[in-house]
Amino acid sequence: MIVMSGAEVAAKLEAELKVEAQAWRAQGRVATLAAVQVGDDPASSSYVRSKLKMAERIGIITRGVHLPADVEQARVEAEIQRLNEDPSVHGILCQLPLPGRMDARAVTNRIAPQKDVDGLTAASAGLLAQGTPSFVPCTPAGILLMLTHYGIRTAGRTAVVIGRSNIVGRPLSILLSLPGWDATVVLCHSRTPDLKEHARRAEILVAAVGKPEFVTADMVREGATVIDVGINRVPDPARPKGYRLCGDVDYARVAPHCGAITPVPGGVGLMTVAVLMQNTLHAVRLQQG
Amino acid sequence: MIVMSGAEVAAKLEAELKVEAQAWRAQGRVATLAAVQVGDDPASSSYVRSKLKMAERIGIITRGVHLPADVEQARVEAEIQRLNEDPSVHGILCQLPLPGRMDARAVTNRIAPQKDVDGLTAASAGLLAQGTPSFVPCTPAGILLMLTHYGIRTAGRTAVVIGRSNIVGRPLSILLSLPGWDATVVLCHSRTPDLKEHARRAEILVAAVGKPEFVTADMVREGATVIDVGINRVPDPARPKGYRLCGDVDYARVAPHCGAITPVPGGVGLMTVAVLMQNTLHAVRLQQG
Repeated sequence: MIVMSGAEVAAKLEAELKVEAQAWRAQGRVATLAAVQVGDDPASSSYVRSKLKMAERIGIITRGVHLPADVEQARVEAEIQRLNEDPSVHGILCQLPLPGRMDARAVTNRIAPQKDVDGLTAASAGLLAQGTPSFVPCTPAGILLMLTHYGIRTAGRTAVVIGRSNIVGRPLSILLSLPGWDATVVLCHSRTPDLKEHARRAEILVAAVGKPEFVTADMVREGATVIDVGINRVPDPARPKGYRLCGDVDYARVAPHCGAITPVPGGVGLMTVAVLMQNTLHAVRLQQG
Repeated sequence: MIVMSGAEVAAKLEAELKVEAQAWRAQGRVATLAAVQVGDDPASSSYVRSKLKMAERIGIITRGVHLPADVEQARVEAEIQRLNEDPSVHGILCQLPLPGRMDARAVTNRIAPQKDVDGLTAASAGLLAQGTPSFVPCTPAGILLMLTHYGIRTAGRTAVVIGRSNIVGRPLSILLSLPGWDATVVLCHSRTPDLKEHARRAEILVAAVGKPEFVTADMVREGATVIDVGINRVPDPARPKGYRLCGDVDYARVAPHCGAITPVPGGVGLMTVAVLMQNTLHAVRLQQG
């Protein structure tokens, strides 16, 4: 059984991106990533910090745009528009979630397609669905990189994706069935009644539901590759922080049956930020003109 | 066993659209559809004619833009741009296939999102993939209308779609798994090795492969709903035209096992043009401002 290490694959990617970013710099082009954050949600602040930190390690200039929680939606859109028009900015991300009163879809869709490093605009989703992706959402792209790194073939295999979110499940289900990846994809979700039956057929099983230890051993085929996208906090008074992190997969009982599995933490989650950096350098390439 | 009649559903839709188009006319707004055709491929000419004919029956004004086969791609794009900017034109379609030397994707993507009545631009595909469709491609939308008309529930059911084209299989697979439709969708294609096994599990089976009588009785679950998207010409010297039309399903042997099935001809194919008209009236609504 292979434990697929997000740390290992992300570190390799980071090293490659550092070389590329330096090559851009030598040509006088300094990759720049802008991060728009609204309010002070601690989890959002922590995510933004980790993104900006990796960017700095790689040699990508960062620009944080921090707006107060009570800002008007129009103001957020205007900030994005300003960044769209600023030729020194290559990539723009808008940290989600936005305050509930805002139309997050409308705000995200203001990001110019050639700067959409999170791959979450409708423009990027359309290119992906048509088989000619430009920016791929970070988590699905990270999963494909891990499969490639560990030599796990997808072509001709049955892949079952549990969860149909626009950020992970949906785009991953599309990517895996595109020519080149060529998996036969089954997209399961909260309205799938016979989930266990579907899951048990998976040669590649992806859990992206956000429910702790949702995937149990009886749902996994012997020898399957299991990708765990979940990062859940479960109360645990024995831990200093009062909780432990766990995935959507009951790792202890599932892992012995797997051919390969991603741990939580240390798996897919670590890939996401690295792919964001990869997308930022892709944005530089697109805008080189 | 129900034979789902495209003629019946399309006629019903046509009647409803006629009422709507007349209501628009009474408000002084004349729905207008422009069809761009390049060259004189007889099949394309016939398709365009049938579209313009139904438009006229409904009360939609048509504008045919016919360009010679040897036209420059830039000229085709310029024509589309002119139609984009013309406020009297609500819907624009570009008849495919274009001559092989052209980048059909680039030409199609020139159509303004709010006039994309074929739903084939990346912008439309993105909105659909994100669960907020604006223009849905005509054949998948027609299939959903037929399922609704015949009271065939999709929620909680397993739908197997064979074929991953951007025009039918891919968008239909996405639509069927969106909230509201809620099917568990399996997308099969030319690289699916165990196609028969997947197909036999389908409560709703969609064949969109373009191979005559590809789906045989042993691939169909007893009582399944079978949707046949194929329209294939098979040589038949006994027929006056020297060929007969057949679908992707071996109708004679499959139908007895089905709960419901679409015939060819007379099935899904008839829906496509009616949905184009529906999309044109949707375009009028979008542009009413």
